[in-house]
Amino acid sequence: MVNWFKRSSGSSAAMEDYKEIDLSEYEGVAEEAAKMYIKVGKIASTNELPAIKKEVYGGNIVILDISLIKNDEIALNRVLRDFKQMAEDIRGDVAGVGEDQVILAPTSVKVDRTRILGRRI
Amino acid sequence: MVNWFKRSSGSSAAMEDYKEIDLSEYEGVAEEAAKMYIKVGKIASTNELPAIKKEVYGGNIVILDISLIKNDEIALNRVLRDFKQMAEDIRGDVAGVGEDQVILAPTSVKVDRTRILGRRI
Repeated sequence: MVNWFKRSSGSSAAMEDYKEIDLSEYEGVAEEAAKMYIKVGKIASTNELPAIKKEVYGGNIVILDISLIKNDEIALNRVLRDFKQMAEDIRGDVAGVGEDQVILAPTSVKVDRTRILGRRI
Repeated sequence: MVNWFKRSSGSSAAMEDYKEIDLSEYEGVAEEAAKMYIKVGKIASTNELPAIKKEVYGGNIVILDISLIKNDEIALNRVLRDFKQMAEDIRGDVAGVGEDQVILAPTSVKVDRTRILGRRI
Protein backbone atom coordinates (compact mmCIF):
# COMPACT_ATOMS: atom_id res chain seq x y z
CA MET A 1 0.00 0.00 0.00
CA VAL A 2 1.44 3.35 -1.03
CA ASN A 3 0.81 5.90 1.61
CA TRP A 4 0.19 9.15 -0.15
CA PHE A 5 -0.81 10.89 2.98
CA LYS A 6 0.84 11.96 6.15
CA ARG A 7 -0.92 13.56 9.03
CA SER A 8 0.22 17.14 9.29
CA SER A 9 0.89 18.66 12.68
CA GLY A 10 -1.11 21.80 11.89
CA SER A 11 -4.21 22.64 9.96
CA SER A 12 -2.31 24.31 7.13
CA ALA A 13 -0.76 21.35 5.41
CA ALA A 14 2.47 22.18 3.64
CA MET A 15 3.11 20.56 0.31
CA GLU A 16 6.07 18.60 1.61
CA ASP A 17 3.76 16.76 3.97
CA TYR A 18 2.79 14.53 1.10
CA LYS A 19 6.28 13.38 0.40
CA GLU A 20 6.61 11.44 3.58
CA ILE A 21 4.95 8.14 4.11
CA ASP A 22 3.63 6.86 7.38
CA LEU A 23 0.07 5.74 7.24
CA SER A 24 -0.12 4.94 10.94
CA GLU A 25 0.35 8.61 11.70
CA TYR A 26 -2.56 9.40 9.46
CA GLU A 27 -4.98 6.99 11.07
CA GLY A 28 -6.38 9.70 13.31
CA VAL A 29 -8.54 11.22 10.60
CA ALA A 30 -11.17 8.54 11.00
CA GLU A 31 -11.73 9.11 14.68
CA GLU A 32 -15.33 8.00 14.99
CA ALA A 33 -16.29 4.39 15.28
CA ALA A 34 -16.70 2.96 11.80
CA LYS A 35 -19.84 1.03 10.99
CA MET A 36 -18.18 -0.52 8.01
CA TYR A 37 -14.65 -1.11 6.80
CA ILE A 38 -13.21 -1.02 3.34
CA LYS A 39 -10.92 -4.03 3.06
CA VAL A 40 -8.40 -4.26 0.26
CA GLY A 41 -6.72 -7.39 -0.96
CA LYS A 42 -5.18 -9.24 -3.85
CA ILE A 43 -6.47 -12.71 -4.49
CA ALA A 44 -3.92 -15.29 -5.61
CA SER A 45 -5.88 -18.50 -5.17
CA THR A 46 -9.38 -19.87 -4.71
CA ASN A 47 -8.15 -21.03 -1.29
CA GLU A 48 -8.51 -17.42 -0.23
CA LEU A 49 -12.24 -17.28 -0.92
CA PRO A 50 -13.20 -18.14 2.69
CA ALA A 51 -11.23 -15.15 3.98
CA ILE A 52 -13.01 -12.90 1.48
CA LYS A 53 -16.37 -14.42 2.34
CA LYS A 54 -15.78 -13.69 6.00
CA GLU A 55 -15.25 -10.01 5.26
CA VAL A 56 -18.19 -9.77 2.89
CA TYR A 57 -20.58 -11.54 5.26
CA GLY A 58 -19.21 -9.38 8.05
CA GLY A 59 -20.74 -6.36 6.33
CA ASN A 60 -17.58 -4.85 4.93
CA ILE A 61 -16.77 -3.45 1.53
CA VAL A 62 -14.13 -5.57 -0.17
CA ILE A 63 -11.96 -4.33 -3.02
CA LEU A 64 -10.00 -7.12 -4.65
CA ASP A 65 -7.23 -7.15 -7.17
CA ILE A 66 -7.78 -10.21 -9.35
CA SER A 67 -4.81 -9.72 -11.68
CA LEU A 68 -2.97 -12.76 -10.32
CA ILE A 69 -5.77 -15.13 -11.26
CA LYS A 70 -7.05 -13.33 -14.34
CA ASN A 71 -5.28 -15.62 -16.75
CA ASP A 72 -6.31 -18.81 -14.97
CA GLU A 73 -9.71 -19.33 -16.47
CA ILE A 74 -10.87 -21.98 -14.03
CA ALA A 75 -9.81 -20.03 -10.98
CA LEU A 76 -11.24 -16.80 -12.36
CA ASN A 77 -14.60 -18.37 -13.10
CA ARG A 78 -14.74 -19.95 -9.67
CA VAL A 79 -13.87 -16.68 -8.00
CA LEU A 80 -16.34 -14.59 -9.99
CA ARG A 81 -19.09 -17.13 -9.43
CA ASP A 82 -18.41 -17.07 -5.70
CA PHE A 83 -18.33 -13.28 -5.63
CA LYS A 84 -21.68 -13.18 -7.33
CA GLN A 85 -23.11 -15.71 -4.91
CA MET A 86 -21.79 -13.72 -1.96
CA ALA A 87 -23.40 -10.55 -3.30
CA GLU A 88 -26.70 -12.37 -3.74
CA ASP A 89 -26.50 -13.88 -0.26
CA ILE A 90 -26.07 -10.50 1.39
CA ARG A 91 -28.32 -8.72 -1.09
CA GLY A 92 -25.34 -6.56 -1.84
CA ASP A 93 -23.57 -5.44 -4.95
CA VAL A 94 -20.63 -6.63 -7.00
CA ALA A 95 -18.94 -4.85 -9.89
CA GLY A 96 -15.73 -4.92 -11.85
CA VAL A 97 -13.67 -1.76 -11.79
CA GLY A 98 -10.92 -1.28 -14.29
CA GLU A 99 -9.01 -4.24 -15.63
CA ASP A 100 -8.08 -5.88 -12.38
CA GLN A 101 -10.45 -4.96 -9.59
CA VAL A 102 -13.73 -6.22 -8.25
CA ILE A 103 -15.73 -4.45 -5.56
CA LEU A 104 -18.10 -6.30 -3.25
CA ALA A 105 -20.45 -4.14 -1.20
CA PRO A 106 -23.10 -4.78 1.47
CA THR A 107 -26.78 -4.16 0.90
CA SER A 108 -26.77 -0.50 1.93
CA VAL A 109 -23.98 0.35 -0.50
CA LYS A 110 -24.16 0.30 -4.27
CA VAL A 111 -21.40 0.60 -6.83
CA ASP A 112 -22.32 3.41 -9.19
CA ARG A 113 -21.89 2.25 -12.79
CA THR A 114 -21.46 5.76 -14.06
CA ARG A 115 -18.11 7.35 -13.62
CA ILE A 116 -17.78 10.71 -11.95
CA LEU A 117 -14.73 11.62 -14.03
CA GLY A 118 -13.09 10.31 -17.15
CA ARG A 119 -14.31 7.83 -19.66
CA ARG A 120 -12.14 4.89 -18.86
CA ILE A 121 -11.16 3.42 -15.54
CA MET B 1 -15.18 -0.30 -16.68
CA VAL B 2 -14.70 -3.96 -17.35
CA ASN B 3 -17.83 -5.86 -16.64
CA TRP B 4 -16.80 -9.17 -15.21
CA PHE B 5 -20.28 -10.09 -14.28
CA LYS B 6 -23.46 -10.90 -16.03
CA ARG B 7 -26.73 -11.57 -14.36
CA SER B 8 -27.64 -15.18 -14.78
CA SER B 9 -31.19 -16.21 -15.49
CA GLY B 10 -31.21 -18.96 -12.88
CA SER B 11 -29.75 -19.45 -9.45
CA SER B 12 -27.17 -21.97 -10.59
CA ALA B 13 -24.75 -19.80 -12.49
CA ALA B 14 -22.91 -21.61 -15.22
CA MET B 15 -19.29 -20.76 -15.83
CA GLU B 16 -19.96 -19.28 -19.20
CA ASP B 17 -22.06 -16.59 -17.57
CA TYR B 18 -18.87 -14.75 -16.79
CA LYS B 19 -17.68 -14.56 -20.33
CA GLU B 20 -20.31 -12.13 -21.39
CA ILE B 21 -20.19 -8.53 -20.42
CA ASP B 22 -23.22 -6.38 -19.83
CA LEU B 23 -23.18 -4.62 -16.54
CA SER B 24 -26.61 -3.12 -16.99
CA GLU B 25 -28.07 -6.60 -16.90
CA TYR B 26 -26.36 -7.18 -13.63
CA GLU B 27 -27.69 -4.11 -11.91
CA GLY B 28 -30.50 -6.06 -10.32
CA VAL B 29 -28.36 -7.58 -7.60
CA ALA B 30 -28.42 -4.38 -5.57
CA GLU B 31 -32.16 -4.16 -5.35
CA GLU B 32 -32.59 -2.35 -2.09
CA ALA B 33 -32.25 1.38 -1.82
CA ALA B 34 -28.62 2.21 -1.25
CA LYS B 35 -27.72 4.53 1.58
CA MET B 36 -24.37 5.16 0.03
CA TYR B 37 -22.78 4.85 -3.38
CA ILE B 38 -19.30 3.88 -4.38
CA LYS B 39 -18.25 6.30 -7.10
CA VAL B 40 -15.27 5.54 -9.27
CA GLY B 41 -13.32 8.03 -11.31
CA LYS B 42 -10.00 9.00 -12.81
CA ILE B 43 -8.81 12.49 -12.07
CA ALA B 44 -7.01 14.30 -14.87
CA SER B 45 -6.95 17.85 -13.57
CA THR B 46 -7.41 19.92 -10.44
CA ASN B 47 -10.43 21.41 -12.23
CA GLU B 48 -12.21 18.19 -11.39
CA LEU B 49 -11.87 18.63 -7.64
CA PRO B 50 -15.30 20.30 -7.28
CA ALA B 51 -16.99 17.26 -8.83
CA ILE B 52 -15.15 15.00 -6.41
CA LYS B 53 -15.95 17.26 -3.49
CA LYS B 54 -19.62 17.09 -4.38
CA GLU B 55 -19.59 13.30 -4.16
CA VAL B 56 -17.56 13.22 -0.96
CA TYR B 57 -19.73 15.82 0.78
CA GLY B 58 -22.76 13.94 -0.50
CA GLY B 59 -21.80 11.00 1.71
CA ASN B 60 -20.48 8.70 -0.95
CA ILE B 61 -17.35 6.60 -1.10
CA VAL B 62 -15.06 7.83 -3.85
CA ILE B 63 -12.33 5.71 -5.42
CA LEU B 64 -10.05 7.75 -7.63
CA ASP B 65 -7.34 6.79 -10.04
CA ILE B 66 -4.66 9.46 -9.77
CA SER B 67 -2.24 8.01 -12.33
CA LEU B 68 -2.80 10.84 -14.80
CA ILE B 69 -1.63 13.52 -12.37
CA LYS B 70 0.91 11.46 -10.43
CA ASN B 71 3.86 12.90 -12.29
CA ASP B 72 2.66 16.50 -12.04
CA GLU B 73 3.96 17.37 -8.61
CA ILE B 74 2.01 20.60 -8.23
CA ALA B 75 -1.28 19.06 -9.29
CA LEU B 76 -0.70 15.97 -7.17
CA ASN B 77 0.06 18.00 -4.07
CA ARG B 78 -2.98 20.16 -4.62
CA VAL B 79 -5.20 17.13 -5.10
CA LEU B 80 -3.87 15.23 -2.09
CA ARG B 81 -4.14 18.33 0.09
CA ASP B 82 -7.73 18.82 -0.99
CA PHE B 83 -8.56 15.14 -0.43
CA LYS B 84 -7.18 15.38 3.06
CA GLN B 85 -9.17 18.53 3.73
CA MET B 86 -12.34 16.87 2.43
CA ALA B 87 -11.79 13.90 4.73
CA GLU B 88 -11.27 16.21 7.68
CA ASP B 89 -14.36 18.25 6.81
CA ILE B 90 -16.60 15.20 6.78
CA ARG B 91 -14.70 13.46 9.58
CA GLY B 92 -14.16 10.67 7.14
CA ASP B 93 -11.19 8.71 5.95
CA VAL B 94 -8.71 8.92 3.12
CA ALA B 95 -6.10 6.38 2.12
CA GLY B 96 -3.88 5.47 -0.79
CA VAL B 97 -4.41 2.04 -2.27
CA GLY B 98 -1.81 0.59 -4.57
CA GLU B 99 0.22 2.85 -6.80
CA ASP B 100 -2.56 4.82 -8.37
CA GLN B 101 -5.66 4.87 -6.22
CA VAL B 102 -7.00 6.96 -3.40
CA ILE B 103 -10.14 6.11 -1.46
CA LEU B 104 -12.24 8.77 0.26
CA ALA B 105 -14.85 7.51 2.70
CA PRO B 106 -17.56 9.10 4.86
CA THR B 107 -17.42 9.13 8.63
CA SER B 108 -19.12 5.77 9.15
CA VAL B 109 -16.69 3.98 6.84
CA LYS B 110 -13.01 3.40 7.45
CA VAL B 111 -10.34 2.13 5.11
CA ASP B 112 -8.64 -0.81 6.78
CA ARG B 113 -4.87 -0.40 6.58
CA THR B 114 -4.25 -4.08 6.93
CA ARG B 115 -4.70 -6.21 3.89
CA ILE B 116 -6.97 -9.21 3.96
CA LEU B 117 -4.86 -11.04 1.40
CA GLY B 118 -1.38 -10.66 0.02
CA ARG B 119 1.42 -8.43 1.10
CA ARG B 120 1.39 -5.82 -1.60
CA ILE B 121 -1.47 -4.00 -3.20
